[in-house]
Amino acid sequence: MSENHWRVTSGEPGAYSEEAVAAMFGRAASSLPCPQFGDVFAALRRGAANAAAVPIENSTAGSVTEVYDALADHEEMIEGIIVGETVLAVRHCLLVLPGVTMNDLRRVASHPQALAQCRRFLGTHGLEPVAASDTAGAARELSCTRDPATGVLASGRAAERYRLAILRESVQDDARNATRFLALATRPPAGVVGDKTSFLLELRHVPGAMATCLEPLAEQGVNVTKIESRPIPDRPWHYRFFLDVEHPPDAPLARQIIASVTRQCLWHRHLGTYPSARRMTTLGNPASLPGARS
Amino acid sequence: MSENHWRVTSGEPGAYSEEAVAAMFGRAASSLPCPQFGDVFAALRRGAANAAAVPIENSTAGSVTEVYDALADHEEMIEGIIVGETVLAVRHCLLVLPGVTMNDLRRVASHPQALAQCRRFLGTHGLEPVAASDTAGAARELSCTRDPATGVLASGRAAERYRLAILRESVQDDARNATRFLALATRPPAGVVGDKTSFLLELRHVPGAMATCLEPLAEQGVNVTKIESRPIPDRPWHYRFFLDVEHPPDAPLARQIIASVTRQCLWHRHLGTYPSARRMTTLGNPASLPGARS
Repeated sequence: MSENHWRVTSGEPGAYSEEAVAAMFGRAASSLPCPQFGDVFAALRRGAANAAAVPIENSTAGSVTEVYDALADHEEMIEGIIVGETVLAVRHCLLVLPGVTMNDLRRVASHPQALAQCRRFLGTHGLEPVAASDTAGAARELSCTRDPATGVLASGRAAERYRLAILRESVQDDARNATRFLALATRPPAGVVGDKTSFLLELRHVPGAMATCLEPLAEQGVNVTKIESRPIPDRPWHYRFFLDVEHPPDAPLARQIIASVTRQCLWHRHLGTYPSARRMTTLGNPASLPGARS
Repeated sequence: MSENHWRVTSGEPGAYSEEAVAAMFGRAASSLPCPQFGDVFAALRRGAANAAAVPIENSTAGSVTEVYDALADHEEMIEGIIVGETVLAVRHCLLVLPGVTMNDLRRVASHPQALAQCRRFLGTHGLEPVAASDTAGAARELSCTRDPATGVLASGRAAERYRLAILRESVQDDARNATRFLALATRPPAGVVGDKTSFLLELRHVPGAMATCLEPLAEQGVNVTKIESRPIPDRPWHYRFFLDVEHPPDAPLARQIIASVTRQCLWHRHLGTYPSARRMTTLGNPASLPGARS
């Protein structure tokens, strides 16, 4: 693998993450599709890819908990792994076999996130939601089963790739429906000063632990933009937290924030300090650090 | 509907919530199965039921976000709606058609939460997870399709009801796998002093808002047991928060906590002050308040 080239893992061909790859890594990045989020981290670990684009949160359906869990499950390799983020408008199309009309449809298959983003549309038309592992995969499946009573929620790009007809465009409940994607990389690009910092941490098991962790951040005028709690495997009712904060793009301040979080936790990982979606431009070539895996 | 009888909505027949109904409302409660969480709130609103049992969180898979969203979507009727909670051990069985062996199986259908709770088991045996709308529904479906290559993750109770064979017992990844259920009621039972209080709230849009909200609670020695953020529909990247706190079972203290949260938020709903799972016993008869709906 070339030292100066992004080789990016993401979802199935035709998935929305293809667009995120282009937005974050540029059109020159080569793509290695991975159907499961676990496969994305496996590809990064074995060096088959040096970067990844993963959806982390949707404006309508909320957090993509599988990605949060995949990050936490790879605790040993995630220090500094987040190198950027982008927010993309997501307009779902209702895809069907050519010739099919609304009257023929009984059910609609897609990723549960896409089904949740189009809940009102499905309810209004009395269409039964059917969960699938991803949007593009559901389109591929329909192109095989050729069931005229089944529709699929996916991108126009997926319609093209799997030769399906677009029966309705932009069927998501909220016209401003958007997904935030993270850019992950095993080696950070050089010379980037971030204005957003992400942590994975476990709080001390004492009353007020969350307040104690957040107070010094509040004093520094830092804006907490996300707190996500996820269960710790094999320790029922214990949580690990993901914390996102926004701050001025100032390296000493970022170090100060990291130190103040570190002091208040049982353990933590600094997932990265990177340009927030507002400031993000396409990432340059990956840094060619000596000793980096390739 | 009798004034002194719990009529409880919950999941499909054979679902785990049947057990939760018995644990929280007693064996005398009559049950009104509802396949979707939205139907549960519709039944409460029209008075077809005066109580409900809903799963809110699993120790392995995390929050049941559909239930959090259904609560928030019914903002007008949820003041004081939570009257109790219970934690039940969840042991999933692998159900198949009679005579089917592990070698025949290709895929396993269930609710995504159950699939997530048995991820390692499915991975070890190379079984493809297939999402279904609930565990008992997947069992019912298999009893109709009679596909020998498909298994289902559900309760032993569901095996009995749908005449399926139990191929493996207790296949969840964590032996201590458990789900926390909420008891909801349109009228609270009389004379209960709670040690847990739940809120739905929106924070002020200023840096440090979460710290400002949590600080007075920390000063009162109150333990925050859960913070869950969910997107507000039609307002991309704005969140409503669910906050659970535990405190001594003292009514004036509970009022003080409610007041301190109220002061720090843009708006809030007090979802209830109720006995935590540790202190919960079966709820008595519903209060016969004059003017209550029946």
